[in-house]
Amino acid sequence: MKNLYEDAKNIAIKDPAATSVFHVIFLYPGFHILIFHRIAHFLYNIKLFFIARLISQIGRFLTGIEIHPGAQIGRRLFIDHGMGVVIGETAEIGNDCTIYHGVTLGGTGKDKKKRHPTLKNNVIVGCGAKILGNIIIGNNVKIGANTVVLNDIPDNCTVVGIKGTILK
Amino acid sequence: MKNLYEDAKNIAIKDPAATSVFHVIFLYPGFHILIFHRIAHFLYNIKLFFIARLISQIGRFLTGIEIHPGAQIGRRLFIDHGMGVVIGETAEIGNDCTIYHGVTLGGTGKDKKKRHPTLKNNVIVGCGAKILGNIIIGNNVKIGANTVVLNDIPDNCTVVGIKGTILK
Amino acid sequence: MKNLYEDAKNIAIKDPAATSVFHVIFLYPGFHILIFHRIAHFLYNIKLFFIARLISQIGRFLTGIEIHPGAQIGRRLFIDHGMGVVIGETAEIGNDCTIYHGVTLGGTGKDKKKRHPTLKNNVIVGCGAKILGNIIIGNNVKIGANTVVLNDIPDNCTVVGIKGTILK
Repeated sequence: MKNLYEDAKNIAIKDPAATSVFHVIFLYPGFHILIFHRIAHFLYNIKLFFIARLISQIGRFLTGIEIHPGAQIGRRLFIDHGMGVVIGETAEIGNDCTIYHGVTLGGTGKDKKKRHPTLKNNVIVGCGAKILGNIIIGNNVKIGANTVVLNDIPDNCTVVGIKGTILK
Repeated sequence: MKNLYEDAKNIAIKDPAATSVFHVIFLYPGFHILIFHRIAHFLYNIKLFFIARLISQIGRFLTGIEIHPGAQIGRRLFIDHGMGVVIGETAEIGNDCTIYHGVTLGGTGKDKKKRHPTLKNNVIVGCGAKILGNIIIGNNVKIGANTVVLNDIPDNCTVVGIKGTILK
Repeated sequence: MKNLYEDAKNIAIKDPAATSVFHVIFLYPGFHILIFHRIAHFLYNIKLFFIARLISQIGRFLTGIEIHPGAQIGRRLFIDHGMGVVIGETAEIGNDCTIYHGVTLGGTGKDKKKRHPTLKNNVIVGCGAKILGNIIIGNNVKIGANTVVLNDIPDNCTVVGIKGTILK
């Protein structure tokens, strides 16, 4: 519970449109989904997979944000707006990350056990960006809107664009 | 009320899949959100910020479209499909604009007071496009699907693509 | 009904995060929308357009996936995650296709009767990709995340990227 208050306070500080912690607690889907995820992740860890995913899906219905119960999420995650966000089962997110709406931390179908990305600390992922595969996004990385990332990114980088070619 | 009827009529004319104004009024989330936004924007202007955002969030839940109560929207806006649209607090939209699903009129974190874009009249924004920052999109501009726009665009242009490079 | 069970079974096989057909039936919005679409498409074919679209819109509200009742969908379609998917009135989808969240099979405003794409068999469309216009996507084509496709694609290709230029 203490951590959830910390999450809400962090959002109130970071979002110029947020006027108070009270606003965040009542109005921010990106905060509400963290409550659902806590519960779902707990149930997932004790192997109650069906009920864990049911809670995750109820959260998705209410917030437009889909976090698989298995995902490991650090402290003070700020999911802004959030509609369309998808975070996969084996994704890991460090502390103080910001994720905008439409972002995917997904798989490519090539990996087996760990199929989804790892975000280190203080990563910002712009709206619509897709981060795919078992890759590592370094500390303090900024990823631009609609960017597609398929490879590891070292610390302190800014990444934009998608490589555009027709492959045989 | 008269304006809302004008909005619905405009959608019925523009959408090849719409068969009548009646259909638009009952079936189009992009029309429903305009009703919510009217109320939310009125409440925002008299500084009832919490209730204004609550109505905006209820509208988001029902339609998948998030318009901040502060956004200024012109006449005959057509938001088609609409899921995932995000329109920021200081965004301004002229008359006769069309916005598809997944479009963001958002901020970059660099601007202070006016943080979101201004769309002049008759602008078309393709699905998934992100328009970010305090920039001006000229009259009759067309923006392609998934395009990312970070700079002013002069009148009568078509813009497509995102610049793809890894910046230090 | 038999086909719907086939659809669910196919999802359970393809998704590494799905543990059983039971899970798919209760937890997968991409399966639920197929039920709505069956009903809506039947009503559309007997020209009950309003009620058909009403059911389509209820499905959109519950799943975040918008399929126009007129769309023709083949067997064993797997819509994964699904939030933000839009499939247009004259779109056609073959058998064994996989579509991720945020994908659009939409129009460009240039075509008249057949306005939306045709996907042949075994096509995979990555998250956020937009396929626009009356074009044909060949058998076994893979389309990368956030890709924009505006032209026919021959069989067995992989397509990624969006062409980025400012057109007068």
